Amino acid sequence: MPTHQPQRIRYAVIGLGNIAQVAVLPAFAHARENSELVALVSGDRAKLHALGERYRVPVTGTYEELERVIEEARVDAVYVAVPNAFHCEITGRAARAGAHVLCEKPMATTVEDCQQMIRATKASGVKLMVAYRLHFEQANLRAIARIRSGAIGEPRIFSSVFCHQVREGNIRTRDDLGGGALFDMGIYCLNAARYLFQDEPVEVYAAQVHGTDPRFADVDEMTTAVLRFPGERLAQMTASQGAAEVSEYQVVGTKGQLRLDPAYEYMGHLREVLTVEGETTQHTFPERDQFAPELVYFSRCILENVEPVPSGYEGLEDVRILQAMVRSAQTGAKVTLSRADRHVRPDEGLEMNKPPVDRVLPFHAPAPSR
Amino acid sequence: MPTHQPQRIRYAVIGLGNIAQVAVLPAFAHARENSELVALVSGDRAKLHALGERYRVPVTGTYEELERVIEEARVDAVYVAVPNAFHCEITGRAARAGAHVLCEKPMATTVEDCQQMIRATKASGVKLMVAYRLHFEQANLRAIARIRSGAIGEPRIFSSVFCHQVREGNIRTRDDLGGGALFDMGIYCLNAARYLFQDEPVEVYAAQVHGTDPRFADVDEMTTAVLRFPGERLAQMTASQGAAEVSEYQVVGTKGQLRLDPAYEYMGHLREVLTVEGETTQHTFPERDQFAPELVYFSRCILENVEPVPSGYEGLEDVRILQAMVRSAQTGAKVTLSRADRHVRPDEGLEMNKPPVDRVLPFHAPAPSR
Amino acid sequence: MPTHQPQRIRYAVIGLGNIAQVAVLPAFAHARENSELVALVSGDRAKLHALGERYRVPVTGTYEELERVIEEARVDAVYVAVPNAFHCEITGRAARAGAHVLCEKPMATTVEDCQQMIRATKASGVKLMVAYRLHFEQANLRAIARIRSGAIGEPRIFSSVFCHQVREGNIRTRDDLGGGALFDMGIYCLNAARYLFQDEPVEVYAAQVHGTDPRFADVDEMTTAVLRFPGERLAQMTASQGAAEVSEYQVVGTKGQLRLDPAYEYMGHLREVLTVEGETTQHTFPERDQFAPELVYFSRCILENVEPVPSGYEGLEDVRILQAMVRSAQTGAKVTLSRADRHVRPDEGLEMNKPPVDRVLPFHAPAPSR
Amino acid sequence: MPTHQPQRIRYAVIGLGNIAQVAVLPAFAHARENSELVALVSGDRAKLHALGERYRVPVTGTYEELERVIEEARVDAVYVAVPNAFHCEITGRAARAGAHVLCEKPMATTVEDCQQMIRATKASGVKLMVAYRLHFEQANLRAIARIRSGAIGEPRIFSSVFCHQVREGNIRTRDDLGGGALFDMGIYCLNAARYLFQDEPVEVYAAQVHGTDPRFADVDEMTTAVLRFPGERLAQMTASQGAAEVSEYQVVGTKGQLRLDPAYEYMGHLREVLTVEGETTQHTFPERDQFAPELVYFSRCILENVEPVPSGYEGLEDVRILQAMVRSAQTGAKVTLSRADRHVRPDEGLEMNKPPVDRVLPFHAPAPSR
Repeated sequence: MPTHQPQRIRYAVIGLGNIAQVAVLPAFAHARENSELVALVSGDRAKLHALGERYRVPVTGTYEELERVIEEARVDAVYVAVPNAFHCEITGRAARAGAHVLCEKPMATTVEDCQQMIRATKASGVKLMVAYRLHFEQANLRAIARIRSGAIGEPRIFSSVFCHQVREGNIRTRDDLGGGALFDMGIYCLNAARYLFQDEPVEVYAAQVHGTDPRFADVDEMTTAVLRFPGERLAQMTASQGAAEVSEYQVVGTKGQLRLDPAYEYMGHLREVLTVEGETTQHTFPERDQFAPELVYFSRCILENVEPVPSGYEGLEDVRILQAMVRSAQTGAKVTLSRADRHVRPDEGLEMNKPPVDRVLPFHAPAPSR
Repeated sequence: MPTHQPQRIRYAVIGLGNIAQVAVLPAFAHARENSELVALVSGDRAKLHALGERYRVPVTGTYEELERVIEEARVDAVYVAVPNAFHCEITGRAARAGAHVLCEKPMATTVEDCQQMIRATKASGVKLMVAYRLHFEQANLRAIARIRSGAIGEPRIFSSVFCHQVREGNIRTRDDLGGGALFDMGIYCLNAARYLFQDEPVEVYAAQVHGTDPRFADVDEMTTAVLRFPGERLAQMTASQGAAEVSEYQVVGTKGQLRLDPAYEYMGHLREVLTVEGETTQHTFPERDQFAPELVYFSRCILENVEPVPSGYEGLEDVRILQAMVRSAQTGAKVTLSRADRHVRPDEGLEMNKPPVDRVLPFHAPAPSR
Repeated sequence: MPTHQPQRIRYAVIGLGNIAQVAVLPAFAHARENSELVALVSGDRAKLHALGERYRVPVTGTYEELERVIEEARVDAVYVAVPNAFHCEITGRAARAGAHVLCEKPMATTVEDCQQMIRATKASGVKLMVAYRLHFEQANLRAIARIRSGAIGEPRIFSSVFCHQVREGNIRTRDDLGGGALFDMGIYCLNAARYLFQDEPVEVYAAQVHGTDPRFADVDEMTTAVLRFPGERLAQMTASQGAAEVSEYQVVGTKGQLRLDPAYEYMGHLREVLTVEGETTQHTFPERDQFAPELVYFSRCILENVEPVPSGYEGLEDVRILQAMVRSAQTGAKVTLSRADRHVRPDEGLEMNKPPVDRVLPFHAPAPSR
Repeated sequence: MPTHQPQRIRYAVIGLGNIAQVAVLPAFAHARENSELVALVSGDRAKLHALGERYRVPVTGTYEELERVIEEARVDAVYVAVPNAFHCEITGRAARAGAHVLCEKPMATTVEDCQQMIRATKASGVKLMVAYRLHFEQANLRAIARIRSGAIGEPRIFSSVFCHQVREGNIRTRDDLGGGALFDMGIYCLNAARYLFQDEPVEVYAAQVHGTDPRFADVDEMTTAVLRFPGERLAQMTASQGAAEVSEYQVVGTKGQLRLDPAYEYMGHLREVLTVEGETTQHTFPERDQFAPELVYFSRCILENVEPVPSGYEGLEDVRILQAMVRSAQTGAKVTLSRADRHVRPDEGLEMNKPPVDRVLPFHAPAPSR
């Protein structure tokens, strides 16, 4: 702890779409201990003006002015909330301008972009974290802890459905911006399967629907995928942008079952249902800001010079698997994921073998008495 | 109502394993209006003696004595509850001895056997019904009615998990008897997807696990499958005999979601959760005998000379799809199901186009006021 | 429907405490069809300024300026949200100034005040309604309808608990302002017992707690009461301002049970649990503004010159019973409520015999298909 | 643990009504470690024959033959399940014949009878325990432990409803046998209020209904009571034999609320709902035999010569309060319970100050890890 004059990391939020407006900007109010909002960047001057005023942000600018904004506002770190397809470019520019990068997920739309983002931040000596908010969320962290502790025996099955109805014209329905049900929603199911099984899939199959609905002219309306994990565990997942709101997963083990329903939301109460040998415990969690803990944690990593997790490798791994799913859907056959694929660069492989949640847990874990 | 001397169909139950003992035999007490238990057939003389005494059944005999039992007890109909692999042989013999056949599901282990069963019963002029008890169960019938009525909008997604822990040595783990998670449990998920979507899948993919667990030396421990239905709807399902008890499905539509949890059980309370536009209704059904309605219905079909549904074609259709799933699991690629495959014999095709539940519903449908 | 120029009732809100700020003022946004907020009255000039600006209210003034405000803003009706002890005085002044009165509950702190309010509004020829928001709330209206329809058989028992933790110094803990658990919260339980049993109690007993907690130096911390209704039905109710948040009631009939939990809240989802003969249906209602329907209804009564319900007699009846409860708590013996007591003035007795909810229901009743 | 020849207490069950048939007799199968059923006593020879055969009980006899049965079957202890009005007489005779007494609740119908039962067993040097099965039931024990641990803050309010529909002619509707809603069902609510508040009420009020229903010509159909406990805590409770099945209680504290619903049943799953500061945990308990633990515990007390709890004083205390409630209902005024009343005999007063559950808990408490 600094003895006097606690230092705060100065943030620019880049991209002022829905997630920035309803979640990221308000989160700074709960992250004051070490984080401060000092700049906004957007292509929309009206948004810059309105939001700049509401949050009393001194410096704003367009994407073209990103470097100027970073300098003028003495920005330490950026929160990248632009469309997925532009994560790579913005991350590179911010890194070269000296800013640490906290980037929304999916990290990018291709493995190559992810690799470039890792290289760019390394080259500039700045930190890179992918904003998997559920790695900081109590219900999901408790689910991980429960499964690890053997509460349901050996986990064997993961099943998840995550849907909502997207409005026509939403950027999530534009392929050129990196939208679609699989990339925008399926990534939650995929990531959950990985952190709950604490392992990487070895084989995937996917079926995609590109419906006749004009909303989905460009992208998948929904995707169903099957994943095989080591230890002969299976996962099934369906993500859709054309069905009513559903947000849940369940892990079935040899002795019991754990469900989260809802599981992926950042508003409202998440609820856990644990069933073991005829006893069912249902727990409703109080609503908490999921974004502020990310800011606090990332700022702390910067201040204490620690590598943040979820790292770029975590983000890359999801993108690698999502791309394999798309390939499978195109061919109608399963795709085998070799372990080799994962070692993007040999010298970084080691790091990847440590599941990121491991290191987060000691920091965020729920009190043991619960 | 007959004024005097109501006629009862005289049944022999063939095969005295678990399902016969805990469900079929006790069901006759609730089916007295038109059904009577008059004979038992089993390979185990001790069982014949003990159960014959408990249920006061006058005539019993071994499988070899099947024809003698049918004659001696003046059996009108048999309930076939032997291992799946023997459904075909027993059905053929019972039919040739003049008995109508109510056969447990899966109807058989191969499409060829199913076809032979249809031919054998037709040739003998006896009726054949496959014992899909959920076609007579209130919660599932109401789910069908709700979805049909548009309660959740257009149904888009089906997701189901059905598991339990099978004991080592159980006949459900013997491949030669027709066991395995897919055939014994997956058939429920598959059949539910079909009656809830009211359609036939056009494409399937499956991944199977043949674990190292000695219980599953012979058969699949679990199977996960993806099905594509006309109208670009997707279904995912996982069946396992090596995981804790789970029994549920959900259908997600454009406006809402319907869940049954538990969905497939015949003991305990089934529960429905319907969520539409922020309103959730949860309904717990009283426990009811699911087997007695099958007996009453089948007896009525015999007495009134009506073709029963679920027919042999319904049973055959499931087996055809299950076999396609097994093929898919072997090749790692999806299998396309042509409509042609379904028309086993051209003259029977027409019948198959009428979803069997349609005809059951008027008989079993819940009161409209509910 | 007016063909052109739809007329809107112009409202002044009097008293800008918690209920006005969180509920009444925002409700005007949902009552635009026939209601308009045109004036604010409060003793606190800072509040007048801040809220006047936020809601763009043209005319504001102190309590002393009430008559001036009514005239200047051409106020048609006032919403009285001042402390309970001042309802009578404010209602009288507003009525004399020509404004219709929609008054928060409890209507007043004594029967005499209630009678005076009825007389004053009658004398001035303005309408008087007591703001029982639950008479306009879907879950409670449906509960009434269900019980009336015989869903739980004959209703026999009512049980309710309504608690929260009040902050020290809150006006609800000041006796001189008409606070206390019984008057501020118990009135909900009492009113619910009356509209669910559709009858008036004939006998009450109450036990009160005036704890050592400094918050409750002046008023009851909690009150438990027993009510006997005609037909030998019993009700029990506990209201507390010194216990954790609970808000629920249940009615037990000869055939089943209906619970609302929460039952009395105006934020969050109300939930109904109906149990009849082993079947349980649980329904979660979407959140809706409960105040706007009151405004819309009262405005309509004014525009169409219809007597509004809940009338002053309904408000008076609750106060009469609450006072009997206080008397019972003081003596330790039950108090018998004679029907005569109820006929405040013979010429108005007739009106009181019609349970107010009866007349509300046709207007607000939930759709029959539910 | 005895090294060889573990000794079993030999029981006679006296009275073969419903509770004996559905609960007590079957419980011996789960109490084999130290308890054995060796004799049956009833006034109905047909029952003696049928149940004697089913449970293979060697010695049976009528009430007149009680002493003979005790001697012949070398009975160590009796389970008294006769109608409440006969508890005293049977207990006295069994004690004098040298048998320890485990007596159903309510212990008797008058305080005098209870005192006589205590004296009779003391004089004969045999142990006396009242069969409060919920003192041995996991959900209720956990509720006690939770409240004691401060999970809901200071407990302030207890509310309970316990109802069912009794059949006409049932002994529970016969006053001469000690029936009625208050004595047969209300005792559960009363006892729960006492073990959850861990204290004795200082004042009670009750309202009773003696309806026109012919079932309740003799006894109360229902009773609602209010109890004041030290520390200014209040309890409300309603027991009825003429309403649909409800079985629940809730304790509201300064920080949260604990509900058990159902709370009092011995068949089916008990369910706990704990709500603290916006977090709700719901737990469904597996079904367990509640009678076997009583037998095992009482046998252990005999074998180890320990005074059993719930003792006769616990039973007497409930009867004393129930009688005060009846008096209150007759007078329409509250009855104050002096502490002096409780010290039936000065030398036994000390024992009564120790809440019985205290001593039971170490034996039956749920594992701390839950």
